[in-house]
Amino acid sequence: MKPNQHYQNVKDSYLFYHIAQKTKAYLEAHPDQKLYRMGIGDVSLPLAPCVIAALHEGVEDQATKANFHGYMPECGAAFLRKAIAKHYQKRGVMLNDDEVFVSSGASDELGDLLGIFDTNQTVMILEPAYPAYVDANLMRGNTIIHRNAGLDNGFLPMPDRSQKADIIYICSPNNPTGAVYSAAQLKEWVDYANDIGAVIFFDAAYEAFIEDPDLPHSIFEIEGARTCAIEICSLSKTAGFTGTRCGYTILPKTLEREGMNLHAMWVRNRTTTTNGISYILQKGAAAVFSDEGQRQVAELIAVYKNNAKVLMAALDQLGIRYFGGVNAPYIWLQCPNGMDSWSIFDLLLNEIQVVGTPGEGFGPCGEGYFRFSTFGDPEDTKVAAQRILDLLSK
Amino acid sequence: MKPNQHYQNVKDSYLFYHIAQKTKAYLEAHPDQKLYRMGIGDVSLPLAPCVIAALHEGVEDQATKANFHGYMPECGAAFLRKAIAKHYQKRGVMLNDDEVFVSSGASDELGDLLGIFDTNQTVMILEPAYPAYVDANLMRGNTIIHRNAGLDNGFLPMPDRSQKADIIYICSPNNPTGAVYSAAQLKEWVDYANDIGAVIFFDAAYEAFIEDPDLPHSIFEIEGARTCAIEICSLSKTAGFTGTRCGYTILPKTLEREGMNLHAMWVRNRTTTTNGISYILQKGAAAVFSDEGQRQVAELIAVYKNNAKVLMAALDQLGIRYFGGVNAPYIWLQCPNGMDSWSIFDLLLNEIQVVGTPGEGFGPCGEGYFRFSTFGDPEDTKVAAQRILDLLSK
Repeated sequence: MKPNQHYQNVKDSYLFYHIAQKTKAYLEAHPDQKLYRMGIGDVSLPLAPCVIAALHEGVEDQATKANFHGYMPECGAAFLRKAIAKHYQKRGVMLNDDEVFVSSGASDELGDLLGIFDTNQTVMILEPAYPAYVDANLMRGNTIIHRNAGLDNGFLPMPDRSQKADIIYICSPNNPTGAVYSAAQLKEWVDYANDIGAVIFFDAAYEAFIEDPDLPHSIFEIEGARTCAIEICSLSKTAGFTGTRCGYTILPKTLEREGMNLHAMWVRNRTTTTNGISYILQKGAAAVFSDEGQRQVAELIAVYKNNAKVLMAALDQLGIRYFGGVNAPYIWLQCPNGMDSWSIFDLLLNEIQVVGTPGEGFGPCGEGYFRFSTFGDPEDTKVAAQRILDLLSK
Repeated sequence: MKPNQHYQNVKDSYLFYHIAQKTKAYLEAHPDQKLYRMGIGDVSLPLAPCVIAALHEGVEDQATKANFHGYMPECGAAFLRKAIAKHYQKRGVMLNDDEVFVSSGASDELGDLLGIFDTNQTVMILEPAYPAYVDANLMRGNTIIHRNAGLDNGFLPMPDRSQKADIIYICSPNNPTGAVYSAAQLKEWVDYANDIGAVIFFDAAYEAFIEDPDLPHSIFEIEGARTCAIEICSLSKTAGFTGTRCGYTILPKTLEREGMNLHAMWVRNRTTTTNGISYILQKGAAAVFSDEGQRQVAELIAVYKNNAKVLMAALDQLGIRYFGGVNAPYIWLQCPNGMDSWSIFDLLLNEIQVVGTPGEGFGPCGEGYFRFSTFGDPEDTKVAAQRILDLLSK
């Protein structure tokens, strides 16, 4: 038996694991200290009341013979696929219910989806980026083209027609930079992908944070996307599902390459290698898409948006340049005083117990930047902002 | 972009999907008929009370800021890994807690685990077998060696030293035949795998149905397994989790091939391509391993074992030869009157509205056999048994 040799090409330590180890070591050395966690993008507020009610209902159904649910349809419960398709209609995106696939969340899906692609693909990653994009592809033996986002392109790189790729990852609103593509910009990417026969993996995990009504929430708002895009969505940030787990993926029936229909392939993949998503979780997820659910999750998001304002005010006072924080839940700041990103990580951890994420962890071009998540506890965020202000204004 | 060409090697229609289509067509033509479903191995009894209580608690924790759980550890919650490791101790199997990986269930895991293996592996499948074993491997481009189980080997094929394989699938108690390997027989497989450098995927989904105290529940009861085996376990049949979803996999730290540690590779896989299993579901799963949980799931299993007795009594009266039904939840019978397995499927569906599974669906050597699941409703099972008796004694 031969192990997958490509695993030798991924670095041993994964960014967030590395941060977890560093914070763990700090806490072991300083057991009395409280940490202000704005590193990993984990949420801090409980689930919305109508989601909780629906989850309880789901559990109760599993307690009675009359309402008990066994194996769920592998691609998702009809009631949830329908609710999600209807949700897209609000922004003028018409989907067949069975173009919606219910998932365990975006992370799981980003890895699993690669299974319907050949193993020697060329993959374009716009960096800085969520590190799993690169690692999941290295583990399959794919070749990575790194495209840099930076000040010169407003953190929104555009297609370079001299480059060819098989798969293109686009995350908008972006993790970690907070940059958001306009419809006109996404149209250029869609046209480029259609022209070169590439498939776009559109990571829409942060769409609920968009405030500007002109910015697209979905790549399927763009003409031509139905022949080149797969949209990977998450309830983790929209509705606080990081530890509850449920997401969804949009894969249009019109997506074909080399005579093979990717929708049919994904159905085959799901029906062979999964047995569907928990009925209980799908009940909870469906509540998010009710009118009341939408109102309640908007309230959660408003709390995080206020966190962003608190942090941005501190950075404004310090004269530190930053991006994001408005249409996105992340603040991407330039490291002050010429520090590199792991140095400021260590400084903030050791001096003021604030945990952020070093930009370098999102790719080499992220060096010189630092990411704050706005998903922290509001009181903690206030304390952290004050501590940052006190430390860096010295 | 190039789709995964290996998908062209899997048949379009998947066994259980095909059965679902046939039963759907029947119900559309006969809307007033009730079906007696003993085809797909789906459970019919609600979850045990202590599991329901734990699931409600899990939901309630997600409703309060103090108890809220965000991202779970990717390889499983410490409390559940510990509970499962302790459960193994009862049978003398000593595991480190972090050799237990919590999963969404066995189906998901059987597909995902192949990711840590090279893509051109030779895979031995003991047939008849769960069809996804073959399909998941074909989809990765692996080569299949089919080993036939049948009357000549008591449905328990033993290693043939002239054959080499990289991965060997063993399901014991077996789906669909109900045959169970003894410890001595498994020892032969373990020695063979260690000798040829193969890895055994041991599917233990039905271990809770073993009654004979001498039969092994886990391959790790066998000396030598820690250097050649991965055990894939499920709560679907043990505790009725088919629609609730949670399982676990045992992958020992001592499993290495070609200088690469498969445990470390699987940790890397999980931490890169998943964000862990729902806190709520893990709370429910942990309740299964409590003393009260074990008592309550044993009661559920006793109901299904009684279904087996009802069906076996009917087959005995008809003089139809069958296997399983004692240490396994499936009954594997010889098709009567020289019928082939899809013909008896159609006969039972059309004449007496009883749904079983044609043996041919589990591989060519399953032709001439038919599988009944004992997971149906007890009253339905009684009616079905009587109808079978009436129809086939004509």
